[in-house]
Amino acid sequence: MSTPFRLELKVRDYELDMQGIVNNGVYFNYLEHARHEFLLDKGVDFAALAEQGIHLVVIRSELDYKASLKSGDRFVIEVEAERLSKVKFGFRQRVIRLSDEKVCVEGLVIGTALNERGRPYLSPAIESLFEV
Amino acid sequence: MSTPFRLELKVRDYELDMQGIVNNGVYFNYLEHARHEFLLDKGVDFAALAEQGIHLVVIRSELDYKASLKSGDRFVIEVEAERLSKVKFGFRQRVIRLSDEKVCVEGLVIGTALNERGRPYLSPAIESLFEV
Amino acid sequence: MSTPFRLELKVRDYELDMQGIVNNGVYFNYLEHARHEFLLDKGVDFAALAEQGIHLVVIRSELDYKASLKSGDRFVIEVEAERLSKVKFGFRQRVIRLSDEKVCVEGLVIGTALNERGRPYLSPAIESLFEV
Amino acid sequence: MSTPFRLELKVRDYELDMQGIVNNGVYFNYLEHARHEFLLDKGVDFAALAEQGIHLVVIRSELDYKASLKSGDRFVIEVEAERLSKVKFGFRQRVIRLSDEKVCVEGLVIGTALNERGRPYLSPAIESLFEV
Repeated sequence: MSTPFRLELKVRDYELDMQGIVNNGVYFNYLEHARHEFLLDKGVDFAALAEQGIHLVVIRSELDYKASLKSGDRFVIEVEAERLSKVKFGFRQRVIRLSDEKVCVEGLVIGTALNERGRPYLSPAIESLFEV
Repeated sequence: MSTPFRLELKVRDYELDMQGIVNNGVYFNYLEHARHEFLLDKGVDFAALAEQGIHLVVIRSELDYKASLKSGDRFVIEVEAERLSKVKFGFRQRVIRLSDEKVCVEGLVIGTALNERGRPYLSPAIESLFEV
Repeated sequence: MSTPFRLELKVRDYELDMQGIVNNGVYFNYLEHARHEFLLDKGVDFAALAEQGIHLVVIRSELDYKASLKSGDRFVIEVEAERLSKVKFGFRQRVIRLSDEKVCVEGLVIGTALNERGRPYLSPAIESLFEV
Repeated sequence: MSTPFRLELKVRDYELDMQGIVNNGVYFNYLEHARHEFLLDKGVDFAALAEQGIHLVVIRSELDYKASLKSGDRFVIEVEAERLSKVKFGFRQRVIRLSDEKVCVEGLVIGTALNERGRPYLSPAIESLFEV
């Protein structure tokens, strides 16, 4: 079994809400950033693809919020990719607080790729990310 | 059957990403804002509760992204509340583009309330939101 | 003297920070949104221009923070445009809390327009916004 | 002369706007985060102070936008503190793109500290940051 891709970040205070914890919406940003870094690590550049008219898009997300991040917390975002169907792929992601290895958020983000005509199409480079 | 609560908003250009569409993470913000307005409409003030140490928290979200919002789009966010268990409640939410009534995002956001000791507890005011 | 353009908005709870007030960075978003609505009102569509390769860009901002917005506050953003030089224009902007007419933020945002080659260029439509 | 405090970050794609560049409002977030890291480095914890009722607040910002950051760019934020008056302090900040050492944003952010009664008050720990 392969090791998940890991990206380490630190909470920024503007990401906190009035409850003094990272706002739920921000985890979406964290997860997106980690997916793009994961893709880049595999040679797939989200921004360069977008300029070519190939759009990686999220079609579904399922997230469980289990614990909160606060000011100063360091954390890791894990990313594992899997092929779900001919044109769908999934990212299993976890946000793990480093001080106590607590899983704060975990979930599945399902996506597809759209070509310049807006049709689902997985290029060979994208397909290769999701091989068994 | 009751009519869902509806909040009308307009896309702001800073919410768009490099693909020229509202970034996925922003829908989370839209949905949260609509839930808080829904609660306020029922006499439950999220911010006032937070100051009293009662925190409404999201524990799970399931969202389907079906179409995109772009610059200038007006849209409605629908909210319907339901009781899921003794300490869990759910919000069925939809983001609907007004120009063509297209559902852009729909999903279920599951929450609970934590009292000042961090224990799940639904006050009578919160419970009354989720009666049949 | 002309009346400033006015846009009314309401604070969204995700815009608050751990101090329970609208985060300073968010005013930047408010001001940008109001400028784009002002431009649209004059027939200039920021997003459509960007697609044509004409970019309106901010080159300097000077903001004074005088009071805070909190959860539930309604406010108005005022916009007045003025010509500053051959290729520079300015927006005088104020964020005014509606409950007590208190000015929360006021400032000057200076911009220019860049053509598709990245050179400063004010089209007639843009120029006409800043006539005396 | 002392060396400025430096914090290195990388652009995250959700920070880009439809022009494919980091949105102006995001620089405010970058600058705030760098100020908080600077303060922490000197032993002053913004979040802990806020919980004690001592609020560091921005009262004015002057920013010049000179160049843009794009997807993938690494950059440094510099912070230098100076005492401006009995109750005001300033942060000279620069955002520098690492690939070519280009200054993208530079500016002055002026702040004060408010005690639990909302009155300007600089504690000895805060004052010591701004000694000559």
